[in-house]
Amino acid sequence: MVVIMTSDATEAQIDDVISRVHRAGGEAFVSRGLHRTIIGLLGDVDEFRSLNLRRMAGVADVIRISTPYKLVSRDQGPERSTVVVGRDATRAGVPIGPDHFTLLAGPCAVESLDQTLESAEMAKAAGATLLRGGAFRPQTLPYAFHGLGKSGLRILAEAGAATGLPVVTEVTEVSDVALVAEHADMLQIGARNMQNFGLLNAVGATRKPVLLKRGIQATIEEWLMAAEYVAQRGNLDIVLCERGIRTFESATPATLDISSVPTVQRLSHLPVLVDPTHASGRRDLVLPLSRAAIAAGADGLLVDIHPDPESALCDGPQALAGPEIRELAAAIRRMAPLVDRQTPGVTPSP
Amino acid sequence: MVVIMTSDATEAQIDDVISRVHRAGGEAFVSRGLHRTIIGLLGDVDEFRSLNLRRMAGVADVIRISTPYKLVSRDQGPERSTVVVGRDATRAGVPIGPDHFTLLAGPCAVESLDQTLESAEMAKAAGATLLRGGAFRPQTLPYAFHGLGKSGLRILAEAGAATGLPVVTEVTEVSDVALVAEHADMLQIGARNMQNFGLLNAVGATRKPVLLKRGIQATIEEWLMAAEYVAQRGNLDIVLCERGIRTFESATPATLDISSVPTVQRLSHLPVLVDPTHASGRRDLVLPLSRAAIAAGADGLLVDIHPDPESALCDGPQALAGPEIRELAAAIRRMAPLVDRQTPGVTPSP
Amino acid sequence: MVVIMTSDATEAQIDDVISRVHRAGGEAFVSRGLHRTIIGLLGDVDEFRSLNLRRMAGVADVIRISTPYKLVSRDQGPERSTVVVGRDATRAGVPIGPDHFTLLAGPCAVESLDQTLESAEMAKAAGATLLRGGAFRPQTLPYAFHGLGKSGLRILAEAGAATGLPVVTEVTEVSDVALVAEHADMLQIGARNMQNFGLLNAVGATRKPVLLKRGIQATIEEWLMAAEYVAQRGNLDIVLCERGIRTFESATPATLDISSVPTVQRLSHLPVLVDPTHASGRRDLVLPLSRAAIAAGADGLLVDIHPDPESALCDGPQALAGPEIRELAAAIRRMAPLVDRQTPGVTPSP
Amino acid sequence: MVVIMTSDATEAQIDDVISRVHRAGGEAFVSRGLHRTIIGLLGDVDEFRSLNLRRMAGVADVIRISTPYKLVSRDQGPERSTVVVGRDATRAGVPIGPDHFTLLAGPCAVESLDQTLESAEMAKAAGATLLRGGAFRPQTLPYAFHGLGKSGLRILAEAGAATGLPVVTEVTEVSDVALVAEHADMLQIGARNMQNFGLLNAVGATRKPVLLKRGIQATIEEWLMAAEYVAQRGNLDIVLCERGIRTFESATPATLDISSVPTVQRLSHLPVLVDPTHASGRRDLVLPLSRAAIAAGADGLLVDIHPDPESALCDGPQALAGPEIRELAAAIRRMAPLVDRQTPGVTPSP
Repeated sequence: MVVIMTSDATEAQIDDVISRVHRAGGEAFVSRGLHRTIIGLLGDVDEFRSLNLRRMAGVADVIRISTPYKLVSRDQGPERSTVVVGRDATRAGVPIGPDHFTLLAGPCAVESLDQTLESAEMAKAAGATLLRGGAFRPQTLPYAFHGLGKSGLRILAEAGAATGLPVVTEVTEVSDVALVAEHADMLQIGARNMQNFGLLNAVGATRKPVLLKRGIQATIEEWLMAAEYVAQRGNLDIVLCERGIRTFESATPATLDISSVPTVQRLSHLPVLVDPTHASGRRDLVLPLSRAAIAAGADGLLVDIHPDPESALCDGPQALAGPEIRELAAAIRRMAPLVDRQTPGVTPSP
Repeated sequence: MVVIMTSDATEAQIDDVISRVHRAGGEAFVSRGLHRTIIGLLGDVDEFRSLNLRRMAGVADVIRISTPYKLVSRDQGPERSTVVVGRDATRAGVPIGPDHFTLLAGPCAVESLDQTLESAEMAKAAGATLLRGGAFRPQTLPYAFHGLGKSGLRILAEAGAATGLPVVTEVTEVSDVALVAEHADMLQIGARNMQNFGLLNAVGATRKPVLLKRGIQATIEEWLMAAEYVAQRGNLDIVLCERGIRTFESATPATLDISSVPTVQRLSHLPVLVDPTHASGRRDLVLPLSRAAIAAGADGLLVDIHPDPESALCDGPQALAGPEIRELAAAIRRMAPLVDRQTPGVTPSP
Repeated sequence: MVVIMTSDATEAQIDDVISRVHRAGGEAFVSRGLHRTIIGLLGDVDEFRSLNLRRMAGVADVIRISTPYKLVSRDQGPERSTVVVGRDATRAGVPIGPDHFTLLAGPCAVESLDQTLESAEMAKAAGATLLRGGAFRPQTLPYAFHGLGKSGLRILAEAGAATGLPVVTEVTEVSDVALVAEHADMLQIGARNMQNFGLLNAVGATRKPVLLKRGIQATIEEWLMAAEYVAQRGNLDIVLCERGIRTFESATPATLDISSVPTVQRLSHLPVLVDPTHASGRRDLVLPLSRAAIAAGADGLLVDIHPDPESALCDGPQALAGPEIRELAAAIRRMAPLVDRQTPGVTPSP
Repeated sequence: MVVIMTSDATEAQIDDVISRVHRAGGEAFVSRGLHRTIIGLLGDVDEFRSLNLRRMAGVADVIRISTPYKLVSRDQGPERSTVVVGRDATRAGVPIGPDHFTLLAGPCAVESLDQTLESAEMAKAAGATLLRGGAFRPQTLPYAFHGLGKSGLRILAEAGAATGLPVVTEVTEVSDVALVAEHADMLQIGARNMQNFGLLNAVGATRKPVLLKRGIQATIEEWLMAAEYVAQRGNLDIVLCERGIRTFESATPATLDISSVPTVQRLSHLPVLVDPTHASGRRDLVLPLSRAAIAAGADGLLVDIHPDPESALCDGPQALAGPEIRELAAAIRRMAPLVDRQTPGVTPSP
């Protein structure tokens, strides 16, 4: 931390700051200039925060230098992490990380076994190695479809078993975490719950990998602090997912912050995916945004697909169907190697 | 709803839309023009939403006309509501609504019985008729002070009893709702939980009034939809609270959307308060923003106070202390009558 | 400026920074800590900017401490300024500043002499002491009404002379500045032109007071930097005007940043007005926002009025007509004294 | 346009709307429903705008259906346009459009002939076919470097001639348009001037292609309306350039709105480039954002390069130097063919 004194701060005020820092066990280095004095602080930043230095007489500003997250910071080590989903006695698991490009696909909402199985097969054919589907679905609209709940979980697990794809699904309540963890291989925290700290703690206490979507209002720093909550409970198998932020532009439901991909990869060792579906709101935008995500260096994609988008109970207008899925698979196959990525699920073109 | 057809839509496409609407039990009125055909829909809008009309061939756009909330809408009746907090066999309760200007005040975080009692007495002296304090505190920073929890609730209830002020406090977890409802007279939903639908349902199922803060990312329409979740469970004792939205301006931690006060009052019958503390981040802004809230027609204020802000464990820099609280009381006393408000807790100046 | 070195910066890298600063004539104060070294810089900040210190090896960050504006900063002196508009041999002029509450009113667009005269008389009756009207009107829509231009200026001047009100009008082109300055007593720079630096320089070179609206995208700091451009040319008669910023909220055309009023008054000595008309987009919002502006401490208001809003060529839906203007006058008369303001144009109520 | 009546609108009010539309020469189609009446309008939309229908008794809302721009709309024809820059008696010109991927590169600010020539040669070696450099430079900071002006133009023209690259440069003042048009092959309108309508009209009146950057606050619709201003003067050789919008995220100076590329291409026939430099603020972000732009389908890139970024007078931290430029050239060479683009300036790798 750096304390900037006002231009008219007195010596006594400067000494007050220094002694308060010393009492908290920190060191203070003073730079006296013609116009202002600057005091550099070394020691326990969290301790300093509680000193209320900013409130002291003669203090103009206090500037934080270190990051407010530690376990998920790239400062922990130069290597980016790979998170493996669905590894157990019988399965090797699916890697998400710097060496691969991983496709997660499936229906926005699980509606029936048929629809989910069909979606899972479409996903697999397109190169997806993880099946994502919604059983518990938070909805802004109080009068909308909220998902099948527990029976949706069972359908999803069955479709995953049938296709051999590990399963990813959203959990929205602390009381559902154990149930969802029983049926799913990865727990998704949705954008609206990114700062639901009770839920972050609860998934942090499981041994399942966590998919943490960015809140539409969240800065990158807040997103990494949310990941830190999960990590604090001992669970470092966290995958981040950019899905667009809220801005003034209304041509799209959210503005996909493509710059967040390389930015997060510089600040954190965690893998980062892109969800092009919810930011676009239109099927014809999903493909260009997916290509952009691959090219920007994302570690994978999360896309909504549906065998019959016109009849989908949720978000039909942006779900991919047959032709677009084949085009997406082709884009991954051709572009991922250009950014040095393996794509294990993608069959080479004939 | 209005369906706008593309300029090259065929008669068959127009007929398809009409028959899909008819099958769903709705009526369709067609306006054929030189360039475009427009189809007006009447009937159950929620049913129409699931028709995926926007996806049909020849459809350019679908425009919603009615609001997505009903119980909290002002269309329910021309009168604005008054919510009474803390009414029981022995107490008349404190009204929040169009005829009063109600001050809620107290410490951001309950730290000790002494600090809370002292804050409560300061609050009461300033004209507050409700004591607000934090026992469970969600925090963006994983390494910050998260509140005293259950013992904080007991301290708050004791301070409320000692001063005769009903108590308002935040609840952050579904599993805490019963406990908090036992100790508090009003349940606060914080900005980060405005779309925590499980929590909204849980407080909706209690018989306690709910204070619903606006999320920093939430449109006014989404805020009213969140209130609708609470109302759907049978609890219409909801008070809204504007506390600033996230914008590009970083001179303040959030941008207080003062226009939301009259806008919400036009769209909904629910009372609306202003919290000037969290939007400002600086004590010297709280007073002008409080005056602006009174003048704009807010039904009350929610302010942080602290007997010794310099030592506060949270948000000290924006808590009001003695002199500012007296100035706030004077502002309410002088300005509230100008907007036709009673202020029962405020002692007339000598 | 403060230079923060990376945690692994070498002594040689630290020395490089120091010698680069010395070569530029600055002083460097070094604080060596356990984890990081911090270098405080004293001297000519603009010179330092060109050193590209942030690019040097071992540098983690460079933090600016001083403000990027000087002439308009409140550091120039503790007193807030009063700008006098329309002072000449025969007129005392109208003050805008900390001791008064000044109402500027008139038609958004000058349409005819009759409409302008009638508006001017309505404005004066309501207590306005300055007549504002649009002759040159920038429009987002290419196919909209762009104002009467030069003949509008003459009409405005005539209406001003007839009512004794000095005249304020927008100038949009460098080539029009001399012409507008000839007819008007104060030159308005609209929100879209806040960073039209050529225009800022041109009005800065006149001797007329300038009304500088905040751009919808502009931070408070950028707004003050725009004012600095005007001041650099020797014209310090600048009045700022908050008119709402662009955010995600679409219930209003812009979000009135009421906090900017006290924030600007803390950072700058310049007066600051509020324009509640363009942020609201609805007549019924103008009054509550006007009251909020008075209460927040604004130095005045700028409102659109029209004798017959239903037939207005521009922005009719938010222009005030007879009854609302009388209500606004009453609000100013009753509230301005509560914030210690004189209102010379406002007739005491009978 | 569609007029939505309030639920309690009377027959007389409905008739009033209809007759006002008829008097303006339009047609009105009425859909009477159980709860509301909807009136579809056909005819001259601009005429309807001036009717102030929204102000009429019984009118709840007026919804615009058609786009407010015409000449630049894709409705004008299904083909996307190609703009050719620098075509004359001796040169074929450089195409920007759907079949090519065009690289514009050069120094942010022209500082000297040597620096500009060296930059131009670096640009050409990397595959750039257009030289972009700044002679007139608008600056938020009043005390920053504003460019060499006229002598900068001459240097740029000389460097263009020496390398055979047509020249693109920004014009900021109406009074400079003729001068800049004399020295440059394409006129750039910067983000701050996107709504400087006098300047748009002035470049629209030249016969030079125009590069129109998106304002940081501008919606896509406003950007296209700005282009319409240029087109109205008869100049349809317009190329759009996305450069990031202002949002709450401060990890980058602006949020690159990558979705705007396919969105603009759907709404307009004009080509659209991406400037990854100003949105990123860091050299290490320029490359991933450039790749994302190619993959998203942009028609080209605009990048800052500098032979010695550490000594650059402007924006050094994000200018590309030797190694990054070679990497960018490789990315274009490998990725552009995947999105069916020719890259005439790029030498095939050996």
